[in-house]
Amino acid sequence: MLKVGNFMSEKKKLALIVHSGTIDRLLCAFILGSTAAAMDIETHMYFTFWGLNSLKKGALDNAPLPATYKHYEVMLKKKLKEMKYPTPYEMLKRMKASGNVTIYACSPTMEMFGITKETLIPEVDKIAGAAVFLDVASDADITLLV
Amino acid sequence: MLKVGNFMSEKKKLALIVHSGTIDRLLCAFILGSTAAAMDIETHMYFTFWGLNSLKKGALDNAPLPATYKHYEVMLKKKLKEMKYPTPYEMLKRMKASGNVTIYACSPTMEMFGITKETLIPEVDKIAGAAVFLDVASDADITLLV
Amino acid sequence: MLKVGNFMSEKKKLALIVHSGTIDRLLCAFILGSTAAAMDIETHMYFTFWGLNSLKKGALDNAPLPATYKHYEVMLKKKLKEMKYPTPYEMLKRMKASGNVTIYACSPTMEMFGITKETLIPEVDKIAGAAVFLDVASDADITLLV
Repeated sequence: MLKVGNFMSEKKKLALIVHSGTIDRLLCAFILGSTAAAMDIETHMYFTFWGLNSLKKGALDNAPLPATYKHYEVMLKKKLKEMKYPTPYEMLKRMKASGNVTIYACSPTMEMFGITKETLIPEVDKIAGAAVFLDVASDADITLLV
Repeated sequence: MLKVGNFMSEKKKLALIVHSGTIDRLLCAFILGSTAAAMDIETHMYFTFWGLNSLKKGALDNAPLPATYKHYEVMLKKKLKEMKYPTPYEMLKRMKASGNVTIYACSPTMEMFGITKETLIPEVDKIAGAAVFLDVASDADITLLV
Repeated sequence: MLKVGNFMSEKKKLALIVHSGTIDRLLCAFILGSTAAAMDIETHMYFTFWGLNSLKKGALDNAPLPATYKHYEVMLKKKLKEMKYPTPYEMLKRMKASGNVTIYACSPTMEMFGITKETLIPEVDKIAGAAVFLDVASDADITLLV
């Protein structure tokens, strides 16, 4: 959302909740996030539930397909490899390198699933509750939940 | 979205479509909704499809996990009980008590699933079609679909 | 999002990502899209992943229910027929006839799934990457991902 007082000078802002942990939706989130970062959009990605579980070390590149599309899994993973498509973790690292992306880990999810900071990948910037996300989102130009 | 004419005085506004009926996504919606309400954000929750089916009396606290994560169901429900985490219905009642939340039931879904007003929990404020939601959402600061 | 410079004269704008390919979520997207179009809202629908697979000729009216709700499939499809509910493809064609809807096909998805332009329904307006969608979304009033 445009901030009226200073709309001339500000970067656009994307606030994205990543609830999902399946490969199709992680790719969707990371394509949006990395494209936004490349467009110099200030990008905030808030990982919760299965999305946050995907930020545990080693998890991001082993994400499953959803049950509905399980029969596509072998084909899709083979195709992505053939295309030399970057993996979700590679995409996340590149995004971070742009300097335009902040990664949030949802604190209530961490408690629910017994996840500690040490078990998460080091690219996580902040552990935060929903209030921090809503505050960021309330003046973002684009708000989405994947 | 900011209303330009009177942006100084207005509350922020969240417009949330709840399409999902699984426990993970209902919790996500209710954590967002209750946090927003506590932040004095005007919160509009429009329940459709499985989300609306969850507002039938007795349904909200018996929501399943999605097929993809079925194997987590026993663990997660046990953990939520241990944490004394409020149930979705408790969260909904607290949100409503804040005075900041309006609950909409999607009228086309009611017809599709043969749901009557009497079978829904009494916390529903309005039965409405998509036009009512889009009208609210078009000047909301945050728009999300869970 | 409101464009501040010319907010008096402009149409409202909806930017919708359609990631899902299940009948419940396609109907959700198409009810939102067709209602928005009827309200004279400028509507942009960006189809990606399973959503884009649904735009292959013949696919839209054969969409499945998600695995979690598979047991509702026979009932729901029977009910929709009884109600003479328009099919997703009928809804899409009506939307397009309004002149308010632009349909985008996600180019990375086309490569991943080996989808060519010729295999898609002719109602697709543009083949585009995420940057095109983000550009549209960054000044939309409502942004959602189904």
